[in-house]
Amino acid sequence: MVDGKPNESTTSKAALKKEAKKAEKAAKKAEHKQAAGETQQNVVEEVDISVGKYGNLPLIKSETKHNERTFTSVSDLNKSVSGKTVWIRARLHTSRSRGKQCFIVLRQKEFTVQAILNVSDVVSKSMVKFSSGVPKESILDVEAKVSVVPNNIASCSQQDVELVVSQLWVVSLSAPQLPLQIEDASRPEKPEEEEGLNIRVNQDTRLDNRILDLRTPTNQAIYRLEGGVCRLFREALTKKGFVEIHTPKIISAASEGGANVFTVSYFKASAYLAQSPQLYKQMAIAADFEKVFTVGAVFRAEDSNTHRHLTEFTGLDLEMAFHYHYHEVMLTIGNMFTEIFKGLRDQFKNEISIINQQYPAEPFAFLDPPLVLEFNEGRKMLAEVGVEVAEEEDLSTPSEKLLGRLVKAKYDTDFYILDKFPLAVRPFYTMPDPQNPKASNSYDMFMRGEEILSGAQRIHDPVFLTERAKHHGIDISTIAAYIDAFKYGCPPHAGGGIGLERVVMLYLGLDNIRKTSMFPRDPKRVTP
Amino acid sequence: MVDGKPNESTTSKAALKKEAKKAEKAAKKAEHKQAAGETQQNVVEEVDISVGKYGNLPLIKSETKHNERTFTSVSDLNKSVSGKTVWIRARLHTSRSRGKQCFIVLRQKEFTVQAILNVSDVVSKSMVKFSSGVPKESILDVEAKVSVVPNNIASCSQQDVELVVSQLWVVSLSAPQLPLQIEDASRPEKPEEEEGLNIRVNQDTRLDNRILDLRTPTNQAIYRLEGGVCRLFREALTKKGFVEIHTPKIISAASEGGANVFTVSYFKASAYLAQSPQLYKQMAIAADFEKVFTVGAVFRAEDSNTHRHLTEFTGLDLEMAFHYHYHEVMLTIGNMFTEIFKGLRDQFKNEISIINQQYPAEPFAFLDPPLVLEFNEGRKMLAEVGVEVAEEEDLSTPSEKLLGRLVKAKYDTDFYILDKFPLAVRPFYTMPDPQNPKASNSYDMFMRGEEILSGAQRIHDPVFLTERAKHHGIDISTIAAYIDAFKYGCPPHAGGGIGLERVVMLYLGLDNIRKTSMFPRDPKRVTP
Repeated sequence: MVDGKPNESTTSKAALKKEAKKAEKAAKKAEHKQAAGETQQNVVEEVDISVGKYGNLPLIKSETKHNERTFTSVSDLNKSVSGKTVWIRARLHTSRSRGKQCFIVLRQKEFTVQAILNVSDVVSKSMVKFSSGVPKESILDVEAKVSVVPNNIASCSQQDVELVVSQLWVVSLSAPQLPLQIEDASRPEKPEEEEGLNIRVNQDTRLDNRILDLRTPTNQAIYRLEGGVCRLFREALTKKGFVEIHTPKIISAASEGGANVFTVSYFKASAYLAQSPQLYKQMAIAADFEKVFTVGAVFRAEDSNTHRHLTEFTGLDLEMAFHYHYHEVMLTIGNMFTEIFKGLRDQFKNEISIINQQYPAEPFAFLDPPLVLEFNEGRKMLAEVGVEVAEEEDLSTPSEKLLGRLVKAKYDTDFYILDKFPLAVRPFYTMPDPQNPKASNSYDMFMRGEEILSGAQRIHDPVFLTERAKHHGIDISTIAAYIDAFKYGCPPHAGGGIGLERVVMLYLGLDNIRKTSMFPRDPKRVTP
Repeated sequence: MVDGKPNESTTSKAALKKEAKKAEKAAKKAEHKQAAGETQQNVVEEVDISVGKYGNLPLIKSETKHNERTFTSVSDLNKSVSGKTVWIRARLHTSRSRGKQCFIVLRQKEFTVQAILNVSDVVSKSMVKFSSGVPKESILDVEAKVSVVPNNIASCSQQDVELVVSQLWVVSLSAPQLPLQIEDASRPEKPEEEEGLNIRVNQDTRLDNRILDLRTPTNQAIYRLEGGVCRLFREALTKKGFVEIHTPKIISAASEGGANVFTVSYFKASAYLAQSPQLYKQMAIAADFEKVFTVGAVFRAEDSNTHRHLTEFTGLDLEMAFHYHYHEVMLTIGNMFTEIFKGLRDQFKNEISIINQQYPAEPFAFLDPPLVLEFNEGRKMLAEVGVEVAEEEDLSTPSEKLLGRLVKAKYDTDFYILDKFPLAVRPFYTMPDPQNPKASNSYDMFMRGEEILSGAQRIHDPVFLTERAKHHGIDISTIAAYIDAFKYGCPPHAGGGIGLERVVMLYLGLDNIRKTSMFPRDPKRVTP
């Protein structure tokens, strides 16, 4: 490596010495503080045999590289490393002292391990006291020996070992008062009748203190899994020749008629935030990219305060040219979902199990290839249980949920495709069914009875598109740019848009979309 | 596949027949039209032996599946399939008729192939006429025999074969008048003195007619490569344990003091568009995600009308906790760039060569591991050629470019890292250098002498952060939320933000960022 610092190692050593001195001072100071705060009579000043083994590290300003020191992950602590001395950097999850002992739990991402400080010939009373006085959530560097425990530690993720601490340094100190306790925020949501002592943290407190809330093992797992959904989505499509594109969020005209759109002041004029990348995906198809996807922010200025609406969410959108039938696209999307579900099941077993401990849910069931039902079959299934849906009517949310349960009971799948929606309930650009004038070449896809994708064959002919827009009573001048996109030849195409947060919520069987948006936005919340 | 259509195949056959009839009619109509438009004397009505082999297809409404028909990609047409009959769906790139012959060029994405219609015992005069009358840019379904040519066809990407057409159907008709010609838009930018006949298309005409402009082989290649940069970025980081996150674009307070920020009307209040995901990346670090990246829209309300500024661009952002030294992060980023450059070189050879034909550029040179220079070394190199930069001064854009040339001459690399920028020229949250009070733990990265990443170790301690903000004269109340993010313990961390469009522009040696943004936004442009 050419790093332009020929005297790095000398600098390092000098710095190391300097730092060690500082640390020693800090440790002494900390010790005095402890002692000063101590009112018991039996405190006597004595030689601290642990000086230089504990304390507050000076602020890490990259003074030294400590290249010789390697850290072990908490998740790697188990019987196989028993007897080894390791360095761990982790949060102080909990601590409790008992006489000459201090038990602490160290937490790193989803993983926890118990550690113990015993007054001994290497660990002083002062060191134990210092350790037990460190505020929870502080970040520690701990040197310790891995030791097998006789009985499994049920409260930790690493159950068969504990750490016997020989050094303990505070890397970053937490404020002593926490607005929420990680333990409370991590508690399983069990039926009310159980022990009333179990404090839970409400949604707003969580979101107001999101940095703390996100530290729970469940949230660590949720957002790792959410990242996985994006990756699996892209991998499945990239394999099939899709190209990733980026579409503008700032647009000149409000799409879909201007309702529910946020206005942006754009220099001396106004612009809008895109409610969907659809026009741009379609333009990419008209521009010969054949198969495209885009992952990005989508904005909806809808004043909906429900468990499943956000004003800003992450859209996973795709559009694909086909040869003769939109099922080429619909089944590509369906199979992509199957690949995502398989990937989650196989690659995120541990995350799913952690999340289920706090939020129990049935495992997500799916078929390969996915189930495709026609709208009319769905209507029939609903009619059989006494729910009538008119031929040209959309499904209500309760009907969707009921149909989801019926489908689950009959086919044992939490995912299915409902094809051939009534033409009357779909936007003007949806291709009508050539055989049935009341139907259209459009589909929704459902997870656990809730819609997670809406898609269709789009009309790719400017003349027919104009005709359909007129039929819908749309002022053609407002959509001229959209229609013009098809003027210079466009292949037949279809696509769809997916809300990432909804997919994750429903896959995990969670009850609120705010649990799957890291920093959710709704009509009442734009912070943090 | 359960698709709920047991009688699919019967439907298909019936539809096929129906369609064939329609097509026949259409062909006849087209023929008559042609004949009517023809003023020459020698046109006589005769039996058309090619009826049912050409014409305008009815609008594809997914009436039939044509599952028996497979299509061949233009890129796969070469000697190895000589003699085979294939179906191709492609654009009519150019056509010219000469007596009883019509030569056409079919284009599919970056690839072109010559096709020929000869009046023969299977191809009628009417069919040749019809074919030569189809407007350029229309989409065709062509059935043809692959035939080896004696001399390479220099004007096509598929040089050793041509197609002998037996069927020709118009799938989607283009308007006959094009606002720009794909051939003109594809022409190499050569020095002015060459033949004056070479029409080129100016930037605004291109952008106003982006759908056509994007169809050039160069643009097809640019955006495929751009998608590749995103993929390689994510792959390199995912391998290293980074988690993908999504950060909100709508924020409650204007970051970085409120200059250059777009305002959004948010229900009854105002909000802003995020100029950077930095706060959120840092919050994810404070929330124990350790290593995060995010790909998303970034907004800058800067009234800069230059070759390298956009008001909306795609940010590739990352942030990473480190143990002791920010070089752990800086080198991770540097090595990530090396992986991207290697990936582009190895996986996008064809795209790069297509782009270079229109926009010639030196191949992008890089070192593995990347070159790291300190700011003071950069200053020295500039001083040696007579350009003085004061100790606490930033580099001007011309100095950056000059330094890029000096570095290239000395080290043969178009990418390098400049470390240890003066503290005075960096934002308040940048960690000062612990050894040199005038320097900071910050770095920029350059491609071909232009900055593409700015990054630093951030101050992770709320007390020190407050002190530095005061030193910068910042009103602490306006950044309270930012400072509070570090209140409950935060590991030392560093990161950086990359502009995707700039990386692609500079990698390819292009002269304008509008060439690498599919639908660019600048102070004067919010369409298409």
